[in-house]
Amino acid sequence: MSAPAGADATPLLTGRLVTLEGVDGAGKSTQARLLAEALRAAGATVTLTREPGGAPGAEAIRRLLVEGEPGRWSALTEVLLFTAARRDHLERTLAPALAAGNVVICDRFVDSTRAYQSAGRGEGATAPRETVDALHRLCIGRDPDLTLVLDLDPAEAAARDGAAKGAETRFEAFGGAFQTRLRAAFRAIAEAEPARCALVDAAGAPDAVARRLRAVVFARLGIAGP
Amino acid sequence: MSAPAGADATPLLTGRLVTLEGVDGAGKSTQARLLAEALRAAGATVTLTREPGGAPGAEAIRRLLVEGEPGRWSALTEVLLFTAARRDHLERTLAPALAAGNVVICDRFVDSTRAYQSAGRGEGATAPRETVDALHRLCIGRDPDLTLVLDLDPAEAAARDGAAKGAETRFEAFGGAFQTRLRAAFRAIAEAEPARCALVDAAGAPDAVARRLRAVVFARLGIAGP
Ligand SMILES: Nc1ncnc2c1ncn2[C@@H]1O[C@H](COP(=O)(O)OP(=O)(O)O)[C@@H](O)[C@H]1O
Ligand SMILES: Nc1ncnc2c1ncn2[C@@H]1O[C@H](COP(=O)(O)OP(=O)(O)O)[C@@H](O)[C@H]1O
Ligand SMILES: [Mg+2]
Ligand SMILES: [Mg+2]
Repeated sequence: MSAPAGADATPLLTGRLVTLEGVDGAGKSTQARLLAEALRAAGATVTLTREPGGAPGAEAIRRLLVEGEPGRWSALTEVLLFTAARRDHLERTLAPALAAGNVVICDRFVDSTRAYQSAGRGEGATAPRETVDALHRLCIGRDPDLTLVLDLDPAEAAARDGAAKGAETRFEAFGGAFQTRLRAAFRAIAEAEPARCALVDAAGAPDAVARRLRAVVFARLGIAGP
Repeated sequence: MSAPAGADATPLLTGRLVTLEGVDGAGKSTQARLLAEALRAAGATVTLTREPGGAPGAEAIRRLLVEGEPGRWSALTEVLLFTAARRDHLERTLAPALAAGNVVICDRFVDSTRAYQSAGRGEGATAPRETVDALHRLCIGRDPDLTLVLDLDPAEAAARDGAAKGAETRFEAFGGAFQTRLRAAFRAIAEAEPARCALVDAAGAPDAVARRLRAVVFARLGIAGP
């Protein structure tokens, strides 16, 4: 199959939800942009979005989540706020884009909620996985078609991550041991759902990682590279 | 049984959650205050609180809910936000007060979420009752010991309600027919759960309504009036 000329010629690309997951600084946002470019070059109509956020209401909820004290919300309240933001994002951004046949690339999605909860960060600070999954089934009900888990040593990710975070420091404040548990949680998700997820080595230069991701995405979505 | 002298002498009063429900302007906030005074005079330690809100995090979520355009949130996103605020309120305010043996008087609670959803306000603008109840079981899990449903013609309630609302106009903007469906929804809840709920006529002067409410509350909580 050769690279298609336009969205109309790419029936296999219609309405696919591709999510990127991994620890802070793994390169999700960088790779989401590079992947969007590659898919556009291959003829797809791409919607690039992120969580929490991705719609005006969801971005307002995002501010409640990423700003303020680490102990501002309990684990369960946090999951409810993430699910509220995800529902708004689904209705206002994801569903219309998927209905239009776009490839939607989403920087973080439900697996971040799962990983952050199972990684915990102190006593009683974790919502049961069953609760996270029950809320997802009840209120979201849409799984990604493909989830790219960017796997990287959190120390390497932290060293890489020179970008100023501004006010969005609440999750980073949980610390290094938390990031290590987080990486393990993402790996466990990828292992448990191999049909949906791909674990991708996120070490190396951005271009090298991008090549790895393109190979996985183009193979799984059934299209040839540009 | 005579009026007890202090909280230590009122075992029957320990840890009771009393909620007030009804349309806008029915007199919930006024009566919550008068009821708190009456219970204190009868020797109870009372915590007076409200929803959405009642804790710092929950009040921040409240602002997202009560401000802005009527169409700002879909029905399901709204239920998730109310449940997040209720969870925060439960953990930070209600549970500690109930554990301390207080009588907690809460101005609106889960029945407002149920009534507002079943009353709807246009196409697709309603979350299924089963979803509201599933979220309540999953994330709150505490029903009130007594729910006072203040029943009043919404036209009378609106005429009464001269207080300035400031920025908190989002729900009032749904209009008069909506308030009529809301009243019916509250009545249906009271009828469906008579052991937990009491439907109380909210017409007349504040003192007359307060006397009606005191009679119900003191009888149901098993205490004598002051
Ligand atoms: N492969 C890479 N090698 C080195 N630095 C990178 C790489 N990918 C991204 N970066 C830089 O690391 C930081 C974090 O990348 P980002 O894409 O924002 O990660 P994430 O979204 O996973 O937190 C950014 O400053 C980015 O420019
Ligand atoms: N029984 C009553 N008769 C007349 N006005 C009342 C009565 N109860 C309350 N009000 C007034 O009506 C308005 C709405 O009462 P409020 O207690 O705030 O109702 P709610 O909390 O149910 O919206 C307030 O201005 C209040 O002072
Ligand atoms: Mg990022
Ligand atoms: Mg009020």
